[in-house]
Amino acid sequence: MKKETLKKLIDVAAGRIPADLVIKNCKVMNVFSGEITSGDIAVSDGMIAGIGTYEGKETVDAKGRYAAPGLIDSHIHIESSYVSPEEIGRLLVPHGATTIIADPHEIVNVCGLRGLEYMLEAAKGTALDIKYVLPSCVPATPFEHAGAVINAPEMEEPLQIEEILGLGEFMNFPGVIQAEDGVLDKLMAAKNAGKFIDGHGPGIAGKELNAYAAAGILADHECSTVEEMKARLENGMYILMRQGSACHNLRTLLAGVTEQNSRRCLLCSDDRQPKTILHEGHLDNHLRICIEEGLDAMTAVRMATLNAAECFGLKDRGALAPGYRADIVLFDDLKDFHVNRVWIEGRAVAEEGTYLPKICPHEISSVKGSVVVKDFSKEKLKMHLKSDFVHVIEILPGGVVTKKETAQIKLDEKGEFVREAEKDIVKVAVVERHQGTGNVACGFLKGYGIKEGAVALSIAHDSHNIIVVGVSDEEMTFAVEELVRQEGGIVLVKEGEVIERMPLPIAGLMSDQSGEWVDEKLTAIHEKAYSELGICGDVEPVMTLCFMSLAVIPELKLTDMGLFDVTSFSFIPVEA
Amino acid sequence: MKKETLKKLIDVAAGRIPADLVIKNCKVMNVFSGEITSGDIAVSDGMIAGIGTYEGKETVDAKGRYAAPGLIDSHIHIESSYVSPEEIGRLLVPHGATTIIADPHEIVNVCGLRGLEYMLEAAKGTALDIKYVLPSCVPATPFEHAGAVINAPEMEEPLQIEEILGLGEFMNFPGVIQAEDGVLDKLMAAKNAGKFIDGHGPGIAGKELNAYAAAGILADHECSTVEEMKARLENGMYILMRQGSACHNLRTLLAGVTEQNSRRCLLCSDDRQPKTILHEGHLDNHLRICIEEGLDAMTAVRMATLNAAECFGLKDRGALAPGYRADIVLFDDLKDFHVNRVWIEGRAVAEEGTYLPKICPHEISSVKGSVVVKDFSKEKLKMHLKSDFVHVIEILPGGVVTKKETAQIKLDEKGEFVREAEKDIVKVAVVERHQGTGNVACGFLKGYGIKEGAVALSIAHDSHNIIVVGVSDEEMTFAVEELVRQEGGIVLVKEGEVIERMPLPIAGLMSDQSGEWVDEKLTAIHEKAYSELGICGDVEPVMTLCFMSLAVIPELKLTDMGLFDVTSFSFIPVEA
Repeated sequence: MKKETLKKLIDVAAGRIPADLVIKNCKVMNVFSGEITSGDIAVSDGMIAGIGTYEGKETVDAKGRYAAPGLIDSHIHIESSYVSPEEIGRLLVPHGATTIIADPHEIVNVCGLRGLEYMLEAAKGTALDIKYVLPSCVPATPFEHAGAVINAPEMEEPLQIEEILGLGEFMNFPGVIQAEDGVLDKLMAAKNAGKFIDGHGPGIAGKELNAYAAAGILADHECSTVEEMKARLENGMYILMRQGSACHNLRTLLAGVTEQNSRRCLLCSDDRQPKTILHEGHLDNHLRICIEEGLDAMTAVRMATLNAAECFGLKDRGALAPGYRADIVLFDDLKDFHVNRVWIEGRAVAEEGTYLPKICPHEISSVKGSVVVKDFSKEKLKMHLKSDFVHVIEILPGGVVTKKETAQIKLDEKGEFVREAEKDIVKVAVVERHQGTGNVACGFLKGYGIKEGAVALSIAHDSHNIIVVGVSDEEMTFAVEELVRQEGGIVLVKEGEVIERMPLPIAGLMSDQSGEWVDEKLTAIHEKAYSELGICGDVEPVMTLCFMSLAVIPELKLTDMGLFDVTSFSFIPVEA
Repeated sequence: MKKETLKKLIDVAAGRIPADLVIKNCKVMNVFSGEITSGDIAVSDGMIAGIGTYEGKETVDAKGRYAAPGLIDSHIHIESSYVSPEEIGRLLVPHGATTIIADPHEIVNVCGLRGLEYMLEAAKGTALDIKYVLPSCVPATPFEHAGAVINAPEMEEPLQIEEILGLGEFMNFPGVIQAEDGVLDKLMAAKNAGKFIDGHGPGIAGKELNAYAAAGILADHECSTVEEMKARLENGMYILMRQGSACHNLRTLLAGVTEQNSRRCLLCSDDRQPKTILHEGHLDNHLRICIEEGLDAMTAVRMATLNAAECFGLKDRGALAPGYRADIVLFDDLKDFHVNRVWIEGRAVAEEGTYLPKICPHEISSVKGSVVVKDFSKEKLKMHLKSDFVHVIEILPGGVVTKKETAQIKLDEKGEFVREAEKDIVKVAVVERHQGTGNVACGFLKGYGIKEGAVALSIAHDSHNIIVVGVSDEEMTFAVEELVRQEGGIVLVKEGEVIERMPLPIAGLMSDQSGEWVDEKLTAIHEKAYSELGICGDVEPVMTLCFMSLAVIPELKLTDMGLFDVTSFSFIPVEA
């Protein structure tokens, strides 16, 4: 802040000069006192000067609506919305978000620090204040090839960047609990930079949880039971209650919120797809759920504002009071939380669902062309099996956990798979797309239901190699080739034709189009997956494949390095 | 923290290696969850590794006592206890204090940054973690001569010191509200250094309060009504509820504490004399009062721990949880809050009222010899009055506010005051002791009751010149000469003999002796002031004089520059 700015702010607050903007006639939600007071909000240079009776160069009549501090999403992966930072701003701001804490884990796994740089630059093209954390686990596991390796030495420079608040969710919790050397180096890098360390510790308990907390882990968004939540709270960790497109923990966890502990509870999305945002909203939806579950509105709003600001050390926001950023949301009521208007740093940025600022898309050339496969051909899909009794990955509908199964399959004379339609077993392959290893690993998938064509995609957590499933090597090969041609995304093929596609040119993960376009494309992909390819109605055709390589979720997964048994934590042969 | 320290901490937490210390069998007050759980506290290198069942190289049995985080006094002037930083540690730690936020306003007004340096160095000689703020208003007013002038340029360097957390109470609130240029520079110096600005804003309301808050004032310890408290809370300021030796606001303000706002409420002493500490305690006394007034113990403890840590950004303390400092207090119960034992950074520092560490007094030569008067003699007390109708400062017993009165006095042929015993009007003088100005200002005091001898002292807020009151110029001169000889403090004389004295060699403000010694001396001074000098029983003989120069407290005061009318904010002649 400049001295002149401070002087003007004090002059406006004291009523000696008019404010830049006065929002008249508000019911102001005071998160400090817990009370709602009537008054005008006076703004000077993007900051709140005072609340009372004020005159301004510009005035807006709130007509008695509720004014709340701008909402803060305490943990979100922008990549999971398949849109750019500029576009996530356009989607979220009309729902009251003014700050998000984004973890660019996916793009950094693909593009390394170049991906981070793109995310930082692109964030400048939106009014939404996007704060980042530096992904802590790149690659996420040593069981697949990623686009980058980021260890402690590589962390030092980015941790100095102001917009990078800390280290992202430390998923390698076994490494933390075991105090592994490389993990300690990463933790020390964050501590030495004075930055926080975000957590990800599903299921940890007892002394292991003590060890995880002692390492300095600030928060956890992976609680799925009140018991887990309470244990983390007691250990000094903030609880980020998640309500995303995939995971819905908020209602469960609200049962654990008390008057005594609520200040340590926050709201987050983690993953939020355009469809969810467009139809259900964002943190406004979280607030509605809080009210439905019996929480009072002030405590709910506080979880999305002051508590988050305190957790992340964002001293300039989270409340409507003199000296704070003029990040302001007008709600019609405190039940539906319909957002009437939003200001960020005193600038009107949304009105009745419409994002107001001009969008300035950032140049994406630095993160395009990330889908590079070496020497791929149909031959790479050959398996040369020595036995017709094989391991199969069985899909369990409604989640991302798979079952490790065995099956009798039919082989030709060369030991190659011959599909039998009635068995619902198809070939699945992972094609490495980062380092030019030429790796292609094959396995078998049961329960996907595909009867025609093939599906290929470049979104495969966490390294995002190509996953392809199809009824024949020809269809699968064509799908991979088309996916490479469109620089990543999702492609559905049938009889040598592309029947639907969603190119994701940004790192093979995100579109440069609108959220509505993504939603339409995803809807069309789902429809055609069911209607044209015959995929089972109870299987989510895209998400199911997205998590097929994630070697930390049980029981059996496939990476570019082979079939991985998560239970024994080792690679196993396809032959059983 | 070193990497090896972190590794050991995690290893201890996980139970792989024994802790340095285990405090067994505690009822642990968890300020995050608001719950009390039974368990052992494991300590590694001065930090808490975990709470659960642990084994250690050393174990202490808490025998089911309540373990709370070490207490934090959020605002205290060490000088007001008349003892050194080492000694304040010895006095406060056995009452559960492990951190204090000290404002060395008095010594810096006398010795400038040399005084601050002494306080910082001396603090290293106690286990108590003394954090300082840099006094913001030196001199406090332009109406007297102080030992230093500290403006924004002089603030930059000390604000870089790690132990200096911010700028001390900004008493020049009119300057803040008016956005005066020099004030803005000071505020900017703190903001640019990333440090907070503490407040002092009695009575401010409405837009003036908005302006004060907009300037970035973090906290206020001057609330005396719930209304003032609520207004500050709404404006985002933390409320430091004061219970000192002079001011008792805690009981009044507790009525304003709610479930919704309590996280913004803290406990502080401001001024706490040895007698109060020895007889009533410190923050343990605050906690007792909280319970008496109906607050629950967890909320009360939280105000003295987590809330304070959050307010001042002390992320390493304020709670008992993994990774936090092992600053631990064992209470016998949650009503009397009798302190059984105290640890600071895992080191046993107090047991049953006794401070355990060896005290290492810091060299005081840099702050000795601060009472230097130029060309003082009896002649300087001559007044050459032109009229026998004069202004008199009338003491109002029980406080520090005085009344501006007039009186008919008796003069000799040279215009000099002739005391008439029945009128209870005596001469009072202020002798400048910092800059060698040779300033001596005289006035008249009514209601002090002194019938013999004189009293002189070098504690006179906020510039701490010498104040002397006596029945004759001879007695007054002798008292000043004796006070200079003993390098400051308090002296009582009668008939040319010193009848009691308390030398305060540290800046003329603080003793190098124990708190018990100070208490005995002050008690003796009070007794003799009444019994030997005949001072009125309803007048506090020392405190009354200490505030006689404070030109911001109504109505009539005397500084080294003359008689000051606080109502008109101007100097006035002695003649009415």
